[in-house]
Amino acid sequence: MQEVHIDLGARSYAIHIGSGLLARLGNYLKEFRFTPRVLLVTNPVVGSLYGEAATAALENAGFEVLRAEIPEGEEYKSLVTAEKLYDLAYTRELDRRSPVVALGGGVVGDLAGFVAATYLRGVPFVQVPTTLLAQVDSSVGGKVAVNHPRGKNIIGAFYQPRLVLADLDVLKTLDPREVRAGLAEVIKYGVIADGDFFAWLEENLERLLALEAGPLARAVAASCRIKARVVQEDETEQGRRAILNFGHTLGHALEALTGYTTYRHGEAVAIGMAAAARLAAALGMLPESSAARLVNLIRRAGLPVDMPPELPTGDLLASMRRDKKVLAGRLTFVLPVEIGRVEIVRDVPEEAVERVLRLCRNQG
Amino acid sequence: MQEVHIDLGARSYAIHIGSGLLARLGNYLKEFRFTPRVLLVTNPVVGSLYGEAATAALENAGFEVLRAEIPEGEEYKSLVTAEKLYDLAYTRELDRRSPVVALGGGVVGDLAGFVAATYLRGVPFVQVPTTLLAQVDSSVGGKVAVNHPRGKNIIGAFYQPRLVLADLDVLKTLDPREVRAGLAEVIKYGVIADGDFFAWLEENLERLLALEAGPLARAVAASCRIKARVVQEDETEQGRRAILNFGHTLGHALEALTGYTTYRHGEAVAIGMAAAARLAAALGMLPESSAARLVNLIRRAGLPVDMPPELPTGDLLASMRRDKKVLAGRLTFVLPVEIGRVEIVRDVPEEAVERVLRLCRNQG
Repeated sequence: MQEVHIDLGARSYAIHIGSGLLARLGNYLKEFRFTPRVLLVTNPVVGSLYGEAATAALENAGFEVLRAEIPEGEEYKSLVTAEKLYDLAYTRELDRRSPVVALGGGVVGDLAGFVAATYLRGVPFVQVPTTLLAQVDSSVGGKVAVNHPRGKNIIGAFYQPRLVLADLDVLKTLDPREVRAGLAEVIKYGVIADGDFFAWLEENLERLLALEAGPLARAVAASCRIKARVVQEDETEQGRRAILNFGHTLGHALEALTGYTTYRHGEAVAIGMAAAARLAAALGMLPESSAARLVNLIRRAGLPVDMPPELPTGDLLASMRRDKKVLAGRLTFVLPVEIGRVEIVRDVPEEAVERVLRLCRNQG
Repeated sequence: MQEVHIDLGARSYAIHIGSGLLARLGNYLKEFRFTPRVLLVTNPVVGSLYGEAATAALENAGFEVLRAEIPEGEEYKSLVTAEKLYDLAYTRELDRRSPVVALGGGVVGDLAGFVAATYLRGVPFVQVPTTLLAQVDSSVGGKVAVNHPRGKNIIGAFYQPRLVLADLDVLKTLDPREVRAGLAEVIKYGVIADGDFFAWLEENLERLLALEAGPLARAVAASCRIKARVVQEDETEQGRRAILNFGHTLGHALEALTGYTTYRHGEAVAIGMAAAARLAAALGMLPESSAARLVNLIRRAGLPVDMPPELPTGDLLASMRRDKKVLAGRLTFVLPVEIGRVEIVRDVPEEAVERVLRLCRNQG
């Protein structure tokens, strides 16, 4: 088992990564001063696979479990769904020390986390991420949110979990497409912060795609450590934390314009990373060979690297200007300057972005 | 002018208390690194009195003002109203450094603060409280919230403002009933933390009711300082901060059971403080003479001290058990042990509470 400690003063917490963790969920929770009623939030698919195991683990440790299942899909990561959870929590008299446990992927974690952050002005939050993406990304760093009808994650907070359990066993039932989407974020960490890790990924990609336990634990822990380092330096994204959004400026726009149904988040980020690498190369910031290495690794992971031909460039630019990271309408990109290091570039010329977007299309 | 500094590390801020501050709102904001679009949240009454002055002050300092008026009343302090503000903010492309300015009383401040805390995971928040209650209470301490259909402030956060401007001039247009309701919280600060301040209030009550500038500035600043001291020790209400809820356990229950229409918040707290003093005396924790001093000062301020005869005691007990401060169903009260010092008492016997509630009724 690997353990990653997130050092945020009074809001510090640990991420445990390994096998067989779900069965010990109750024991982990017993270490805290929680009251014994737990709100377990999951979705129908994860609930049918692991809901019983999680409930049994909690009950065996003396907890009473209220289970809430939210429907699958980004469109249910909404204030409307959050209100249903507030209702349940209030009706069943959950108090300020009753933990909310998220058992699922990013949607479940973000929504349950937002409810935990805001119910009674904040109750304890525990993450049990069941997708590779959630294990390496959304369960580290304290970002919780629901979507606005017109924009993703527009309503949210920075709210740290008290504990994260990343059980690698549950990845075995994951759709291989979801595994690949998660690897997009793993690749991202290599590009933004660790060239050696990127090289290790180039060598071990097939073992990760096959979910081999050893390499998987190493990749998840390395990803969490890189994210933790960035988050510790800048918890509320005032500056440097924005490097975690490498590939996300375009990725978010792609997801928004295709109604969050065409691409998995990691797939949109994959296209965004490929485009950002090409943009950096076009601006003379990154050697062409490095851009090619990145595009090649993304391709080998079975992820898309090209823009869908039907989306108007103007719509993409307008959508990117809406990004939360945008200040006063200026287009900002996170661009690689080498494999392992990125820069935040403000006021990227629109012509260059347009040129690259067109280029990414033609290579389809 | 008086200034109270709230020391919360990276989340520190200043409260300015005095005359003529509204006209300088824009100048104060210019000291921060904000983007120039401001969301000004107010209500129709305050908007008609001070909306133009606030807007002019902001525009003269180079800000563009989006003004949102929310209807008067606790029932509009809701997720539904919050969604309208998110819509406006998103449509008009407010970014992470665009401040939300609350111009109004507690409802406006709590709602605008909740939106500021959650829009884009948090944007700068500025309070311009226009009621005495908001100046001494809700604008200090970072509690923001909206109501759940079945409970007050059930959905919220701890989120500190960047600046508070308490302009005493605006209190001149306040309904005298609101002034008295605000004094309930001022009296509370004397009871919980400062016997000398309580004695000063006994001597100066009439001057405060007449809104004399000197005593008013002193009372507001002293109240803010006491609250600040408590909040600094316990920002997220893990323990000692609960003393600020003196009078509130019963007060909240009274407000809830009367649909938030019969009593102003301060009036319900006044009854709650009188009942808590009597309960403390009945339990032998407080001399009868001290309880009488408190009840007498509340009465002199023109505030109620007795329970409405029609509310069933059982309903009140059930409602108090729902209080956010309640853990695992145990009745907790903040009880005075002398004028100037209170204790948090857990597991108060229900019989004693019932006896005092009946007593408070008979003295009507």
